[in-house]
Amino acid sequence: MTILERLGALRGLMREHGLAAYIVPGTDPHASEYMAPHWMEMSWITGFLGETGTAVVTLDRALLWTDSRYYLQAEAELQGTSVELMRESDVDCPTIADWLKKEITNPKSPNRKSQENKSPNRKSPNRKSIGVNPEMYSVNGFKKLREELEDGGLELKSVDLIRPIWTENRPDIPLTPLYEYEDKYAGESVESKLRRVREALAEKRCDVAVVAELDEIGWLLNIRGKDVDYTPCVIAYVVVEADKCTLFVDPRKVDADNAAKLKAKSITLRGYEEVFSYMNGLQATGVLFDGNRVNEALYEAINPAITRKVNVSPSPLQVMMSVKNEVELNGEREAMKVDAVALTRFFMWLENEALKTPQTEITLADKLHEFRAMGKNFTDESFCTIAGWKGNGAIVHYHAESDACAKIEGNGVLLLDSGGQYLDGTTDITRTIWIGDEKAIPAQVKRDFTLVLKGHIALAKARFPKGTRGNQLDVLAHQFMWQDGVSYGHGTGHGVGHFMGCHEGPANIRMDNNPNPIKEGNVFSDEPGIYRTGEYGIRTENLVIAVPAKVSERTTGETYYEFETITLCFYDKRLMDFSMLTQNEIDWINAYHARVAAETQPRLNKEEQAYLADKCKPIQMNK
Amino acid sequence: MTILERLGALRGLMREHGLAAYIVPGTDPHASEYMAPHWMEMSWITGFLGETGTAVVTLDRALLWTDSRYYLQAEAELQGTSVELMRESDVDCPTIADWLKKEITNPKSPNRKSQENKSPNRKSPNRKSIGVNPEMYSVNGFKKLREELEDGGLELKSVDLIRPIWTENRPDIPLTPLYEYEDKYAGESVESKLRRVREALAEKRCDVAVVAELDEIGWLLNIRGKDVDYTPCVIAYVVVEADKCTLFVDPRKVDADNAAKLKAKSITLRGYEEVFSYMNGLQATGVLFDGNRVNEALYEAINPAITRKVNVSPSPLQVMMSVKNEVELNGEREAMKVDAVALTRFFMWLENEALKTPQTEITLADKLHEFRAMGKNFTDESFCTIAGWKGNGAIVHYHAESDACAKIEGNGVLLLDSGGQYLDGTTDITRTIWIGDEKAIPAQVKRDFTLVLKGHIALAKARFPKGTRGNQLDVLAHQFMWQDGVSYGHGTGHGVGHFMGCHEGPANIRMDNNPNPIKEGNVFSDEPGIYRTGEYGIRTENLVIAVPAKVSERTTGETYYEFETITLCFYDKRLMDFSMLTQNEIDWINAYHARVAAETQPRLNKEEQAYLADKCKPIQMNK
Repeated sequence: MTILERLGALRGLMREHGLAAYIVPGTDPHASEYMAPHWMEMSWITGFLGETGTAVVTLDRALLWTDSRYYLQAEAELQGTSVELMRESDVDCPTIADWLKKEITNPKSPNRKSQENKSPNRKSPNRKSIGVNPEMYSVNGFKKLREELEDGGLELKSVDLIRPIWTENRPDIPLTPLYEYEDKYAGESVESKLRRVREALAEKRCDVAVVAELDEIGWLLNIRGKDVDYTPCVIAYVVVEADKCTLFVDPRKVDADNAAKLKAKSITLRGYEEVFSYMNGLQATGVLFDGNRVNEALYEAINPAITRKVNVSPSPLQVMMSVKNEVELNGEREAMKVDAVALTRFFMWLENEALKTPQTEITLADKLHEFRAMGKNFTDESFCTIAGWKGNGAIVHYHAESDACAKIEGNGVLLLDSGGQYLDGTTDITRTIWIGDEKAIPAQVKRDFTLVLKGHIALAKARFPKGTRGNQLDVLAHQFMWQDGVSYGHGTGHGVGHFMGCHEGPANIRMDNNPNPIKEGNVFSDEPGIYRTGEYGIRTENLVIAVPAKVSERTTGETYYEFETITLCFYDKRLMDFSMLTQNEIDWINAYHARVAAETQPRLNKEEQAYLADKCKPIQMNK
Repeated sequence: MTILERLGALRGLMREHGLAAYIVPGTDPHASEYMAPHWMEMSWITGFLGETGTAVVTLDRALLWTDSRYYLQAEAELQGTSVELMRESDVDCPTIADWLKKEITNPKSPNRKSQENKSPNRKSPNRKSIGVNPEMYSVNGFKKLREELEDGGLELKSVDLIRPIWTENRPDIPLTPLYEYEDKYAGESVESKLRRVREALAEKRCDVAVVAELDEIGWLLNIRGKDVDYTPCVIAYVVVEADKCTLFVDPRKVDADNAAKLKAKSITLRGYEEVFSYMNGLQATGVLFDGNRVNEALYEAINPAITRKVNVSPSPLQVMMSVKNEVELNGEREAMKVDAVALTRFFMWLENEALKTPQTEITLADKLHEFRAMGKNFTDESFCTIAGWKGNGAIVHYHAESDACAKIEGNGVLLLDSGGQYLDGTTDITRTIWIGDEKAIPAQVKRDFTLVLKGHIALAKARFPKGTRGNQLDVLAHQFMWQDGVSYGHGTGHGVGHFMGCHEGPANIRMDNNPNPIKEGNVFSDEPGIYRTGEYGIRTENLVIAVPAKVSERTTGETYYEFETITLCFYDKRLMDFSMLTQNEIDWINAYHARVAAETQPRLNKEEQAYLADKCKPIQMNK
């Protein structure tokens, strides 16, 4: 089927259902960061293959909203499809709701007072309807859209019109095997986690928790899989009740051994799609769910006799998952050492060997993968490596393709953001290094690198009372570059999962408001950057753990936290302007480098040890 | 009437109105910081004279909720009144709503399904009612209380039962003369301000603004008075409509000259109490009000035919008022110089003369007032001076009384927080100084003083992009003391009015979330502190203006702000541990001291100049 044929088929169904428009978002039913191809409905209906976008189809037009990162790609991919591009990063681009309110003729409001005076248009026979697949919207996202549309006299209807027409060549829902994530890595039994969830439910006067987010499911039931890229999760739903816990998963994923293990933990297995009928028959006094992570279809399926529905974001599971236990933290620390070996070998190869043959951003990323893959417990990368040479480093979400990537030639700045999934932990590190003649490093590059480093260190050194939120600490990373009138458009720190999603909530370190305080055992990235369009990008990133602070005897007794830096990799000293660093900062770098060397060297050979020792040599005090 | 008689009279009325309880909060109808005695209903019914508290009277009990600052005072003043003290800072103290829900027997909910199924208890004949005077509650405060009580099956009723019984010796509403605040000080005409308010109304699809907060009224109509302590405001209400503006004020306050001036500005005058009937007859499409600052009585009085009521906090007026124009800012800068002269003379007197005769916290405050009162355009203090000697300095809201204040004797730390109201600006400054033998300064005092100073300087030096909120910057002031596990329990910076309230919103610099960004022209305090119970308090406070930053050529072009410090007074160098200061900080202190000397000295005599020059002598670079 061509895109035009697909649109035609959709419009046929829209007419049958009396819909004036149909919205197809680029999402999946599990609020996932990485999507299975099965759910790429937006790409199927428009031909646009970018990760972010929403399609809107009316009876005579089709449009795609996407942001500026994808303008060029969308322009190319939408050619000949009749789909119009809506550039949503542009100031004058209307929202989808606003566009629909204007485009879909709004019928005159009835003159007589409606009986439902809260929402006079609700029952109007002339009211136009907009359809969406409720599996693709979070409960909160659906509610927001519905309210925006109702404000313009439009009605939002739940109906899946893609499934009946996308019948040929639709990829299946992935079927990779589910496996047990052993307690020796997880550090807490399923029984204990379920007990804590049930306690949290009782606090909210609920007896059922509905879980749709795959990281939460993997964490709760100590299971992993390989259903999507980078995050080792299993596509499933979970319903926790007072006396049972049901995992809704395709039975073909669960072999007899794992089925027996789950049964031994009193987990009932049911088919993936059965969750909807199960919700309908649910008996409960109160159902708790995270409205940002549970989809509307699941919500609509809840037994209507249950009136107490508690919508909380973040869910108690998300908060618990973000607080790592000692076993998880020790696993992280070990994974970091394994990662450090790969990084050392990679940077040594890059400096001594790589450029004897032609290299590109892709070949570097592949080589780094090779070194990581030799490490114990390595399973995969934790996200798609960003290797940004010169100007490409300034594109924050840059993704090189083998047929369109830069060759590493001459002098320049390389930004390298990468990470690994190890059975005992997830890593994420960015280093920015100089390639070529050291004497050619421009003063501005050094200044920018050092401003970023100063911010990175200030955050790493922070100490703060319990209850502090990440948006309070963010300025520590920004403060020095702000003095120069320079900033960056991404967050300073995201939460990191444990052999799970590389990005997790609920706390983070950003300028934006986020009411969730930093908790002991949270793992965050610390990654300020400076980006010079067309020139270079600089970012320096370590992972840190929030740990109890060893405060002085002068303390007034409150609980304080500080960050333990766990990433182990040297910074490129050639890029530092030492004159911009305080003695305090130099001491911190020297101590960090000493630790990197001490903790990595035992795993290296002589030559590698010598290379690392040189990189970690202390900066001399008398600058 | 004794308290017991007053309570008896109230209970009589409660029975007449069928009320199970009556709540008397310590507030006024204008959300004021400083209250006129006329409205001290809580004090009248309980005998407790503290500033903060709420009384609850049932048919057989009377209680007062107040916080730990007032426990001792309340215990003394409530003796023999039958009023029980509820210590609301204690962890186990119930909220008023929770207490009422438990105390007032909750009737059985009707078994039959009520027709009003949204709120089944609403019309129950057995429902118990709680009364409050709606003038004493903000719209939002009333709504919150009503919802909490309804949750427990109780009903909240608007009825003023104090007015009928407080007939003897009730102080009148103050009648100080209203006067024009000249454009040469205000920097913007009333006409221009009204135009901007009407534009803001149009944006919210409203045509009426109701204003009850006295600072906003003074700002909008360029009027001032002396109806309450410290804040030069006029007790009044204002209603702005599309084609008129009405000031509801006791006509006895407005002499013929001022009446004519107001008339010339097209402001209509009506009696203060007439606002309620006026609201009832209001014709409008939409009424805008700040639900945190407009009282419930005013809200309830709005013509019921007007259905569009837009409740916004902060109100557009509050935001406009907080953004000072150039005339206001120059006035502030001038007021600071006048204040600096008084401060220099005071500190010189304190060091050279004061202790030749016995001094107390009160005599020092009085002397400072004397020096300020000699300054041009001085009208009053901007709040009650806090002079805290030794351990008293550690009590954050300390207020010395002449019959209970410390004598200044021996060696010790003096915390002095004070400010002036000048026609051209409002000042607020805290200095902490050592009195006595310099050699006796404990190392801990120096360390604490220097940690506070480092935070104070870091905030003063901040540079940040437009859109930054105060809670993002707060950590700059906290960061150094947090390394020692020490913090303070008050905000770091509050907004400051222009010849108006010393504390104003909507932006501030605190740990708490506050969505209001810092705007160009905002004036804030910068006042970190450290408090050692029973030993001493340290606080260092300047006022700063948010001004456009002179960022480098390296900027990416965004708008950045920085702070201009406008307070002019030296810090006590004897209390600094120079070894804890970076060169950068020493440079900042030296530059500040040089500016203090340069800008203050032309107004001083020879002897004062010499004193100030010594205090402002640069710290030597080679520590």
